[in-house]
Amino acid sequence: MAAALTAARDGRRGANPLVGATIRAAEGRTVTGRHLGAGTAHAEVDAIAAARGAGLDLTTSTLFVTLEPCSHTGRTGPCTEAIRDAGIPEVVFALPDTTEVGGGGQILAEAGVRVRSGLRAEESAELNARWHRATAERRPFVTAKIAQSLDGKVAAADRTSQWITSAASRIHAHSLRGEVDAILIGTGTVSDDDPRLSARGEDGELLDSQPVPVVLGFSDLPAGSTLAANPATVHLRTHDVAAALRELHDRGVRHLLVEGGPRVLGAFFAADAVDEVLCYQAPVLLGPGLPSIAGLDIATLAEAVGLVPDDTDIPAVARLGPDVLLHFTTGGR
Amino acid sequence: MAAALTAARDGRRGANPLVGATIRAAEGRTVTGRHLGAGTAHAEVDAIAAARGAGLDLTTSTLFVTLEPCSHTGRTGPCTEAIRDAGIPEVVFALPDTTEVGGGGQILAEAGVRVRSGLRAEESAELNARWHRATAERRPFVTAKIAQSLDGKVAAADRTSQWITSAASRIHAHSLRGEVDAILIGTGTVSDDDPRLSARGEDGELLDSQPVPVVLGFSDLPAGSTLAANPATVHLRTHDVAAALRELHDRGVRHLLVEGGPRVLGAFFAADAVDEVLCYQAPVLLGPGLPSIAGLDIATLAEAVGLVPDDTDIPAVARLGPDVLLHFTTGGR
Repeated sequence: MAAALTAARDGRRGANPLVGATIRAAEGRTVTGRHLGAGTAHAEVDAIAAARGAGLDLTTSTLFVTLEPCSHTGRTGPCTEAIRDAGIPEVVFALPDTTEVGGGGQILAEAGVRVRSGLRAEESAELNARWHRATAERRPFVTAKIAQSLDGKVAAADRTSQWITSAASRIHAHSLRGEVDAILIGTGTVSDDDPRLSARGEDGELLDSQPVPVVLGFSDLPAGSTLAANPATVHLRTHDVAAALRELHDRGVRHLLVEGGPRVLGAFFAADAVDEVLCYQAPVLLGPGLPSIAGLDIATLAEAVGLVPDDTDIPAVARLGPDVLLHFTTGGR
Repeated sequence: MAAALTAARDGRRGANPLVGATIRAAEGRTVTGRHLGAGTAHAEVDAIAAARGAGLDLTTSTLFVTLEPCSHTGRTGPCTEAIRDAGIPEVVFALPDTTEVGGGGQILAEAGVRVRSGLRAEESAELNARWHRATAERRPFVTAKIAQSLDGKVAAADRTSQWITSAASRIHAHSLRGEVDAILIGTGTVSDDDPRLSARGEDGELLDSQPVPVVLGFSDLPAGSTLAANPATVHLRTHDVAAALRELHDRGVRHLLVEGGPRVLGAFFAADAVDEVLCYQAPVLLGPGLPSIAGLDIATLAEAVGLVPDDTDIPAVARLGPDVLLHFTTGGR
């Protein structure tokens, strides 16, 4: 299970939880698998493929997995079937899956598989604490993107902000857009920047997966704006973060990227609705100017928003050209 | 000379320039040396020791050094003598030394050494651009220390600020204090925090080298404050950064650490008097609160203070427990 937990950390935070699996053959050899994000093989299936590649006898093996195997056909088939088809006689999972796709343990037990659970359940729960919370709240997993100067500004005093961060940062931010279901910004950003919110590659080409553009706020979108002309744009006329997230969840959004502006980011942090933070920080000082996050009502140090450096998928700290990319999850508060 | 330039980057920015040296023996083997900061062996002497250790025949070798060898007895002896004593017949240096300790090239030539200069002079000059500027301006080399939250705040709205950064950051910051000649803060920080400005180790013990405490500003120091009671404290009753730096240079300060508060840091950046930046950044958001740097008069993006990630001595980006330590030099502007 320790190896499965380590493998889980190689995954990508987002619509699905981080899950890792280990298969231990009767003779002692082991292989691991992990889930690399929505639409890709689940950890169990990845581990089964690895076991077959290594020539392990699955019919005498034990599967350890950090979350109860799913019984659900989504973009991939149910893991319960993959496990039965492989003839694996014993399954140990860390944490029960309490969502609608759970119950795989019972299905396997009824099919004659020896099933145990609870081994290192706390570590598995901790790894996906924010994902479990988002799921329990029936809202998308929320990644906040911050692009700022070293002194925490997103634009200079006159609101000039083009190219604060480097080309390497922009390419990375676009690949992030290609991973999410939707991108949310405020009406102010639509007026200020007329963004497309498309996910593009290094040469400006559209990536295969395009997020749904979402605009939060009461103002009408400017008539000539790109997002007003985009039939896919969802305009949520509210300032209530929880209501907006419920609406997006109902529309099938499971991973939301919040890009700003500052008040929108502040509202999501204030609502404790940020699960992951990616902060692109450029080596400049902007002095007076627009803070990257606004409207946080923090009076004293004890009320600070604590973040946790996160080494899953990407390192907690990485260089992107002259910029730094910081990766965090958010704590319990 | 390429190897000498690379070796120079292993050094420590501060009172002395970054200098590297390579010795190439007639048979083709090479060794390198570098200067590791004030009070330690100069690069030439370090390379000569390495050459002796490797059994190179110095009397048929060529010495490549990124800066003209010194002719000066400071805390270490003159390099010109070390070179002559070693019997090195040929010296190539990148950049002439125009300070009062320069002229070593001519001394060596008069002693019969074949001397050439100018090889990759621009790269050597670039490496120490800010040090050369500080020297030309007859002021200390200035390192600015910033300790801040992810959103660029040094304290919460009610000014609570204890333990924003981690124990690892505080230990690092104290070792930095042990490297400089003096530490400067504003009168406001004396009133707010009553700091000692001492350099201490992990267990609170005083380090061998203690910086001179310097306070900038017109206000009297609070009668009961630690710094008022310290006879070593220098109180500079001015807001003129250039005048303060001249005064400190006259008192023999060659490496100054500026620790704040925010207005003092802002004044040093505004005066283009910061040569190096160390920024300790904690994974918290403080929202409204005290910015880590105040008073920068930047109206538009083109006026931003540009910093250059600096991999000399320490990496430009490093983790210190949960914090990040960012290391920059400042550009030409």
